[in-house]
Amino acid sequence: MTDLKWKILAAVQDDLVRVEKALADNLDPYLDLVGKTAGHILFSGGKRLRPLLMILSARLCGYNGGKEIDYSTIFEYLHAATLLHDDLVDGAAVRRGRQAAHTVYGNSTAVLVGDFLLARGLSIASRTGKIEVIDIIAGITENMSQGEIHQLLAKQNLELTEEEYLEVIRRKTAVLIQGACRVGALVADAPAQEERALSAFGYNAGVAFQMADDLLDYTADSKELGKKVGADLREGKLTLPVIHALKNASGPERSEMERIILDKDFSEADFDTFVEMLKRLGGIEYTIQRAAGHVRKAKQALDIFVPGPVKDILADIADYALVRKH
Amino acid sequence: MTDLKWKILAAVQDDLVRVEKALADNLDPYLDLVGKTAGHILFSGGKRLRPLLMILSARLCGYNGGKEIDYSTIFEYLHAATLLHDDLVDGAAVRRGRQAAHTVYGNSTAVLVGDFLLARGLSIASRTGKIEVIDIIAGITENMSQGEIHQLLAKQNLELTEEEYLEVIRRKTAVLIQGACRVGALVADAPAQEERALSAFGYNAGVAFQMADDLLDYTADSKELGKKVGADLREGKLTLPVIHALKNASGPERSEMERIILDKDFSEADFDTFVEMLKRLGGIEYTIQRAAGHVRKAKQALDIFVPGPVKDILADIADYALVRKH
Repeated sequence: MTDLKWKILAAVQDDLVRVEKALADNLDPYLDLVGKTAGHILFSGGKRLRPLLMILSARLCGYNGGKEIDYSTIFEYLHAATLLHDDLVDGAAVRRGRQAAHTVYGNSTAVLVGDFLLARGLSIASRTGKIEVIDIIAGITENMSQGEIHQLLAKQNLELTEEEYLEVIRRKTAVLIQGACRVGALVADAPAQEERALSAFGYNAGVAFQMADDLLDYTADSKELGKKVGADLREGKLTLPVIHALKNASGPERSEMERIILDKDFSEADFDTFVEMLKRLGGIEYTIQRAAGHVRKAKQALDIFVPGPVKDILADIADYALVRKH
Repeated sequence: MTDLKWKILAAVQDDLVRVEKALADNLDPYLDLVGKTAGHILFSGGKRLRPLLMILSARLCGYNGGKEIDYSTIFEYLHAATLLHDDLVDGAAVRRGRQAAHTVYGNSTAVLVGDFLLARGLSIASRTGKIEVIDIIAGITENMSQGEIHQLLAKQNLELTEEEYLEVIRRKTAVLIQGACRVGALVADAPAQEERALSAFGYNAGVAFQMADDLLDYTADSKELGKKVGADLREGKLTLPVIHALKNASGPERSEMERIILDKDFSEADFDTFVEMLKRLGGIEYTIQRAAGHVRKAKQALDIFVPGPVKDILADIADYALVRKH
């Protein structure tokens, strides 16, 4: 475990325990199967990044209303709902080292329990009494569903641009993290300037986390990652390391990369070759630099806040995007 | 066309035109495929029952804020979202005489466009500025997803009770229609008594519509219904006509019914036999009586309102549950 991870965990461990409890308490299903299926995805070792960011954002804005743990479950429910639907859509077999829920409980249950989790998130959101929060949730869901469809449509598209990639990850990942931070500011009745700052923090942290995720799919150890590396490539998802490497590739290199991308049954040797090419053609390094740029922007957005332990932890979480192993 | 349908259509035709336009205008997708898939289900000859009930409920409570058409789209979007997910879950091939969306655009798109439609409904709901409306939407979605799962779990369950059947149809159908009517009262800032009355109207009308739907699956003409009759039986869904007939069946009759229920490839002759038995054992008549009871209760709930054309149309719509052919 990295030092940074240790430092963050030490700072938030009490909150994490309370978030776990709230996630179980707020679920409130009437059918056993719903509780089981939701539990399969909810209690499988998620990092609780989104709830934590909401809680810390609220505190950074001086919130002391005592409901931050409760409200924070909104964002884990939304996240879990989209994981259920996306794993099904992507045909993913494994998530966090366990069988994906749709392969255990069936596609129908995964679809409907996803809907249920979305509804639970919304129901908790309505407890805030703030229509702006609802607007954010609606926007998140619109963006995530369309971002995922966009990603589906872009599969194996060798002409995918960096711009289009950014549009997809903004919708499918960044808006949720951005929304969690903004809602933290909103429940604290923070001034507009602070809400905007946390929104920028969340957006940039979200982009950095997704870019790092896309990197890990080529650079991580399968065991640490909790799923086989190369999943994106196997699904035909072109991410930034690949897009950038393709741009820099000469004719024969590009042909070789295209062959592996279009071959759904590429060999392990092919995969190793592919990763080598990503490195050689600068795709890995470029993605690290772009992610680092977003981490920097995220931390800069916090400049308007006075120094203190909450601000430090938020900055640490942004930094963590780039050092994590899974 | 029945006289009643004609009378209702004449009264609401201007609203229907405006609802169609609002459904197209409020959709606002960023991807063509989302617009197409949503359009496939949204513009396929739906009755717009839910938007109309919201509009009429608002007017009955004296609403004149001019936003009722806009708000009414919430309920058609929610309805379309659940149709997309439910048709996929049920493996239904046909809806309203057309191929079901998931068979045209694929399961993944159907799941994600369903999520998008839910989000659009929520987004329009937030325009009301009323947290109670959001609470209702969240409750509707929780109930519908769990009701559908409950229905899945109850497939081919020969011991399904009338009580459990009622619980399923309350969740999967009645709460949405009830919610549409309640929201009508809420946007009109109606007194609690009127909100309760419209809630009771919607609940009972919703139960009656679902019972009538379940009847039509045995008694309708396939062409008028827009899908093959017997779909429920083929899917192993036990509805009230069957539950009641099973209760009244003697040993050999029950065995014959059970055989057909458990045989997924029953013949047309089997189906005719089955319908005959439903009639002879009182399942059809009992369901008509129960539905008629709910229509009566729905209309009684309107007693607190002074007579007038809006109240008449709501009563006509409740009556229509039992005379419609599809």
